[in-house]
Parts: sequence; structure tokens; C-alpha cells
Amino acid sequence: MTHVVDQASSTGGTTGRGGPGAPGEALRLDRAHVFHSWSAQGALRPLTFAGGSGSVVWDDEGRRYLDFSSQLVNMNIGHCHPRVVAAIQEQAARLPMVAPPHAELSRGRAAEAILRHAPEGMSKVFFTNGGADANENAIRMARLHTGRDKVISTYRSYHGNTGAAVVATGDWRRIPNEYATGHVHVFGPYLYRTEFWATTPEEEAARALHHLQRVIEAEGPGSVAAILLETVPGTAGVLVPPPGYLAGVRALADRFGIMLILDEVMAGFGRTGAWFARDHWSVRPDLITFAKGVNSGYVPVGGVIISDEIAAAFDDRVFPGGLTYSGHALAAASIVASVEAMEDEGVVEHAARIGADVLGPGLHALAERHPSVGEARGLGVFWALELVADRTTREPFSAAVMGTVKAELVARGVLPFLADNRIHVVPPCVVTPAEVEQALAAYDEVLGLVDDAVR
Amino acid sequence: MTHVVDQASSTGGTTGRGGPGAPGEALRLDRAHVFHSWSAQGALRPLTFAGGSGSVVWDDEGRRYLDFSSQLVNMNIGHCHPRVVAAIQEQAARLPMVAPPHAELSRGRAAEAILRHAPEGMSKVFFTNGGADANENAIRMARLHTGRDKVISTYRSYHGNTGAAVVATGDWRRIPNEYATGHVHVFGPYLYRTEFWATTPEEEAARALHHLQRVIEAEGPGSVAAILLETVPGTAGVLVPPPGYLAGVRALADRFGIMLILDEVMAGFGRTGAWFARDHWSVRPDLITFAKGVNSGYVPVGGVIISDEIAAAFDDRVFPGGLTYSGHALAAASIVASVEAMEDEGVVEHAARIGADVLGPGLHALAERHPSVGEARGLGVFWALELVADRTTREPFSAAVMGTVKAELVARGVLPFLADNRIHVVPPCVVTPAEVEQALAAYDEVLGLVDDAVR
Ligand SMILES: Cc1ncc(COP(=O)(O)O)c(C=O)c1O
Ligand SMILES: Cc1ncc(COP(=O)(O)O)c(C=O)c1O
Repeated sequence: MTHVVDQASSTGGTTGRGGPGAPGEALRLDRAHVFHSWSAQGALRPLTFAGGSGSVVWDDEGRRYLDFSSQLVNMNIGHCHPRVVAAIQEQAARLPMVAPPHAELSRGRAAEAILRHAPEGMSKVFFTNGGADANENAIRMARLHTGRDKVISTYRSYHGNTGAAVVATGDWRRIPNEYATGHVHVFGPYLYRTEFWATTPEEEAARALHHLQRVIEAEGPGSVAAILLETVPGTAGVLVPPPGYLAGVRALADRFGIMLILDEVMAGFGRTGAWFARDHWSVRPDLITFAKGVNSGYVPVGGVIISDEIAAAFDDRVFPGGLTYSGHALAAASIVASVEAMEDEGVVEHAARIGADVLGPGLHALAERHPSVGEARGLGVFWALELVADRTTREPFSAAVMGTVKAELVARGVLPFLADNRIHVVPPCVVTPAEVEQALAAYDEVLGLVDDAVR
Repeated sequence: MTHVVDQASSTGGTTGRGGPGAPGEALRLDRAHVFHSWSAQGALRPLTFAGGSGSVVWDDEGRRYLDFSSQLVNMNIGHCHPRVVAAIQEQAARLPMVAPPHAELSRGRAAEAILRHAPEGMSKVFFTNGGADANENAIRMARLHTGRDKVISTYRSYHGNTGAAVVATGDWRRIPNEYATGHVHVFGPYLYRTEFWATTPEEEAARALHHLQRVIEAEGPGSVAAILLETVPGTAGVLVPPPGYLAGVRALADRFGIMLILDEVMAGFGRTGAWFARDHWSVRPDLITFAKGVNSGYVPVGGVIISDEIAAAFDDRVFPGGLTYSGHALAAASIVASVEAMEDEGVVEHAARIGADVLGPGLHALAERHPSVGEARGLGVFWALELVADRTTREPFSAAVMGTVKAELVARGVLPFLADNRIHVVPPCVVTPAEVEQALAAYDEVLGLVDDAVR
């Protein structure tokens, strides 16, 4: 883990006629001209980032932050990894983009690099621009292959913002966007807030499977094309599935001729301390969707890993999906470099060790010490602290308290990822033990500030 | 127009452990591991591209082609423009990706650069990864702003492959993908194959407007959120709208409180010899979607240009859309460099002149000379030759004849863009008069080969 260049902080660049940028220019232009995701635009007060290296980012005044958000849980290899940067620079000069009907070396190598880590019996990749369109195309493949329409996904999930992906999504973001047909939602396992009156992980798994089976039966098994699951639901709270659950889902899928799509957009490529989260349970999906960690988001890209059975179904039949930037050469070059660097530097193994030896134990210790922490859960560099106003009722902390938590973490130089009443602890896979200790100390202080709000 | 570096052809790169690539490696990996768009996978025989400069690309054996496809009609500034390449290289080393909630200098500057060329009264940009998700988000904005559901688009259109975009699409690609609700289709103006029994452009415009109005009335004007149109329908055949049509659509939209979304994904950023195709008719849309030409696809990106009225509607109300790579820094840096280079080098004006002085006259001359050409139409560097088996009935050439046309053009070193029975003549905006003459000579020869097939 020696690759992280300790660059001098730089507060701007020289791109464009405007030169390196006057102080405040980025923020001024942002407020004037940039429309932001998932927000009311009026009240936004964004931080401005100007550079980064490894697990550290800095703003345009040189203030440094430990990036325990990995931006949107995508910066697995860390900021500005020199090998990935060099590959982008080289491919940009050679040929940044080749249209999807043609062949190009980096594209083929990117597919091969991804498939080195995929389960047996999956030897083709369809490339997209991100996670949403990966799920769109996986759903398309499952529907066409099965000749069925319905897709079952969970209420606690996020699958992207486009037509089908956002309606497959379970959380609030689906509600204003329900313009796609053929979607059914179920509850998945989540013992801390069980929907099944369960008291043990085994009971939670068994009851969640019973519930899934009953919904399949009630919808009509012959109408269900796919079960679409985040292997470890991420934004919904890092909900590590209990033992037996994923194997049980696979068995139900087999029994009813349903395709199993595992969404590994957030969980894949090292996040859980494995190449794919599914490796922890050896579950065999029919389709895997990926994005984020595949190249840490240096260039927008995502895709679908396809079982040989489904791929073969399109040997003679036209696959009716596609996009201008499918198999984009610059993105592909960044994937090749990123996967090779992760292999050569043991990044995935490092993430597993960090989780097992430093981050996991540290977060469990915080949960012991702070009444405000209802539960700590996760694996690898994929963790959540669930903050509660009452440890008995498990009532979530209010948005106001969470606002305080966020501001206090930022003030302590930790860039956090917050969702509902949770702190998601999601540093780059390359995070060092010392950086973890530093962040844990900040979490510790800030949790101390809100412990008093707990009843 | 002096920027095109005349590099020595290089047949491969050095990215990755594999080094520069053995002969045939790209093709072998492609066939083994890459799943392609819009095709049956079995029979594909892709060309392999390894480098490019300006309007020229070369394969992995050094064979050079004039790129009269602009890949997928996106390479407006030409391959490997040194300023855009340098901007990518620089931003990659500084900070390739910043999450959407934050601010970043290149992102703000990219929005500003785009807005310099947008109509008055549009001062915000929402960035996406490509054209499909740009349309998804424009549709979302129109629906939420109007409180209505339906989107009217044309049968002769392509808007992308995701949930709503592919159902807004009119062509065959919609049919296996109809899982979105709230879409209605109309016929647009296309005098050569009029749906309205019209005989003049004026009549075609008036009748297409009458048809649109009748569909709006029959659907219930209070249910229609948006009219979504390609300003110049591209893949459907470069269907330049007749005088009065777009102004008439705007008037209908105003009359019924409907948002007008112009899809400029293919037509924007110089393709028609204007920054936006809408400039030719001064039509004022509520939303413009873009991708492709904004940065020639060097990094995947697209977006929505938003009217101040619609943007203001989300000042206090949450916009329920977003994506991990919205406002991606690397993409943004490439946009800034590309727009500035196009401004400084007069690329858009060059495209207009090429169309008016060389390409347009040349194609019209081919149409005169060859019985196989039913019509030549277009503007700027956006043209189509419609090939017909019978000039009276206008029966399209068969797929077999079009296959011959394609193979013969490739054999002559022209990389063509074919759609149905048409050759789309869509070189980069930086194409030189000499390159146009060379391509015209190849078209001339190949049309000569198929003239005999005309009845
Ligand atoms: C599990 C999961 N799937 C899909 C997506 C959508 O990916 P994108 O934002 O690249 O469309 C996300 C994004 O956070 C995700 O976490
Ligand atoms: C007019 C138009 N809109 C939208 C799209 C979809 O863009 P993308 O392929 O980037 O999703 C295209 C692609 O060809 C297009 O031509």
C-alpha cells in the first residue's frame, strides 16, 4: 500500500481560459449555473473540492479532509491513483472514444479484467455509463430471456434514477417517479428493524425468504422475470444479509425459473473486502451489475456481467439495448489500470484486513461506548453506525441532530457520508490504519456531543 | 483549423500489463468478452480501431479511414484534439471525480461554457452521463413542473435506451421495451415520405402541426407535460424541419401550458453548423438535452439546460433525480476545453461553411447524378442520402444492397454511418474540404455500383 503520493496540496488547476480559478469562483459558478441531484436548489451550501490523493481531499483553500464518504462510495482505490491517472492520460492521447459497434483493445481488456473476478460461467460484459443504466439493461436481459415482465426488488434499496431503475428502487426516491410498469417490492432481511418479528439472524433469514416466496406465489411465478437485489443493500443502511438468505433466494429463483440480478454497484470491487460482495456467500447470480468501484469513478462507467446462458440467448436474437458510450475506450483503460493496480497492490485484501482488524473493532467499540449508537454493522470498508434517540424503541435521530453530526465531523476534517439516521463509514479501500484511527477519534468526539440527546 | 496533429499512425498503446497488444488481440477479446449494443452477438465482425486524429481513424494494422460517421455522430471536434486531450490529462492528475453534492471548478466552468451558447433565460445545467439520462431527467422536470404525466414524441425519433427514453423513442427499438407509462407518439414533418399527403414544405409543416394539435386535444391538453422533439431528427434520417414547424410547435406548447423539450443530443454543438440546431429557427425551448458534441464524447457526459422558470420551481422543492457521476470533473474539464477550442478555432462556423460550400453542393450533385439517390438533405455536417430501389415509389433499398454499400465504402477507406436505407454523411465539424472531396469521390463510386439495382 505504498502508492499514495503525498502531493503538496494544490488549490486549483490551469484548465481553460480562466486559469487556476479565483478564490470562490467554483462556488459562485456552482450556485449560479449547476443544478444539483436530489435537492431543493435554493439552500445548498456545497463544499468546494480542488484536489485529492489516496483517502484525502482538499478544498480550494487548502483545507484537508479524510474522505470517509469515498465521494458517493465509489473512490475505492483512493483519489488520483498514479497508475489509473497514467492510463487515462495515455488513452486520452491515443483514442478516447470508439463507437460500440467496433472493437478496441482497452475495451476487451477491461472486460477480461472484470471477468477474472466474476463467478464461473459468466464470460461477457455489457458496458454502460453508470449504475442506473446497468440495472436497466440487466432488467431488459432478464425480461427478454425469460419472456416474463415482473421484477421483484426490495423496499430498502437504491438502483439508480432512470425509468426502470428508479421504480425498482424501494426508497423515497421512487415515489415521485413511478412511470415504469412491472415492478413489485418486498421487504428484505434487517434484523435491527425486522419486518418479520424475528429475534435471531436465522429467523430473520427464514422469514424474509418465506415472505419473498409468498409474494412470488401471489404475483404468479410465471410472471416474474427477475429478483433484483443489492448483495449488501448500501444506501439503505449497509444491511449485511444474514446467513442462508442469499442461498435461499437463489433456490427460490431456481425453483421458479426466475433470473437473479445482483446489484454490486456499491458493494463490488473491494468495498466489502472481496472483489464482489457475493463472494462472501458464494451465491451464483445470473447477472451482476457494477459501476463505482470498477474504476473508482475516474471516468463514468458501469455494466452488466452476463451468465453464459443469457449471453447465448442473444447470439441469434437482437439485443434491443445500447448507448453511445458503451465500452468507452477512456473508461475501459481506467478499468484495466484500476483492476490491475488493485490486484498488484492487494487493495481488496487490504480492505478486508482494515475491516477485520481496525475499522470493525473500532466501530463496535464506539457502539459500546455511546448510547447514541444503536448498532454498528458492516464488513470490509463498508460500515454503518445507526444513531438512535432511544435505544429501546430504536427511534431514529432527527434530521436536526444528524445535521449537527455532519457539521461537527466536517469541522473535524472528516468528510462523512450520512443517510437518514446513519453515519455510513465508507473510506477508500486504501485507507491506512492511522487514517482510520484519526476518523474514529472524530466520530468518538462527535458521538459524545449527541449522546445527551438520547433518552 | 490548424490544430489537427498529423501524428504517425500508431497501432496500439502500452496501457496495462499486456503492453501494446498482439495483432488480433483486440478482436479476440472483443468476440470472447464484449456484449454489443442493438445486435445479435453471434455474427458480429467488428473493425478494430487503435488511434485517431481529426477526421481520420486507423485500425490496429495501420489502415486509415476517413471517419464520416464521427463514431456515433459525436466526434464533432475530431479525434484526439490536443486541447481537449491536455485538459483531460490535467484534470485526471488533479481530481478526476467529485461527488454531485459538492462544488468543483471545472463543473461550474463547464456549465458556464455551455450556457454561453444557450438561448436567453436558461441559466442552469443538470449534468448526466449521456443522452438517455438527459432525456429521462428533462421528462422528470417537465412532469413535476406541470403536474402532468404525458409526453408526446414522434415515431421517427431516438431518445436513448433507458426506461422512459426508450419508450419516448419512436423507432423499432421501443417495441421490445415498452415498460414506461405516459408516452404518446405522433408523426412529424418529413415531406419526402409525407404522412399528411402534403406536396410542399409549407403544407407539410401546417399539416404536421394540425396533426399534433389534434393529438393534444384528443389526449386532453391538461394531461400533457411535454412535447419532446429532436430539433433535427437524426438517426431517423436527418429530417430538417420545414419552415414554420418549430415555431408552430412552440405556439401549441404555449397555448396548452406544455413544456417543449428539444433533444439536441445529436444535433447540438456544431453538427448543423450552429451551436444548437434550434438557433436556425430561433425556437425557444423550456429544456434542451445534450450529450455527444458537447465534448465529442471524449468522456461520457450529457445534460439538461433548464429554463429559469423550471429551475426556480426546484428552489424550494426537492428535485427527485440524480446520479453518481452528475457533474463529473473529468467530463467537465473536457467540456470546457472543447467548447473553448470550438470558439477559438471557429469550428462551428467552419462546419456551416463546409455544409454550404462543399458538402451540401457535393451531395446534391450526387443526388442529381445517381438514380439510386432519392433525396439528399441536411445542413452543416449533418446530411443524409436516401437510397431507393425505385425513384417513383421511393421504395427503400434492401438491407442486402445497403450491406454492399457499407462494405464498398469501408473498402475505399471511408467509415460510413448507415441507417435503414440511408447513408448519413456526418463527418467531424473539423473536416477539411479535401477530406470531403475524397469522401464524395468514394460515395460517387459506390453509388455507381448500386445504380443498376434501381428500377
Ligand atoms: C446499489 C446501487 N445501484 C445503482 C446505483 C446507481 O448508480 P448511478 O448513480 O451510477 O446511476 C447506485 C448509486 O448509488 C447504487 O448504490
Ligand atoms: C437524438 C438523440 N437523443 C438521445 C440519444 C441517446 O444518447 P446516449 O446514447 O448517450 O444515451 C441519442 C443517441 O444516439 C440521440 O441521437
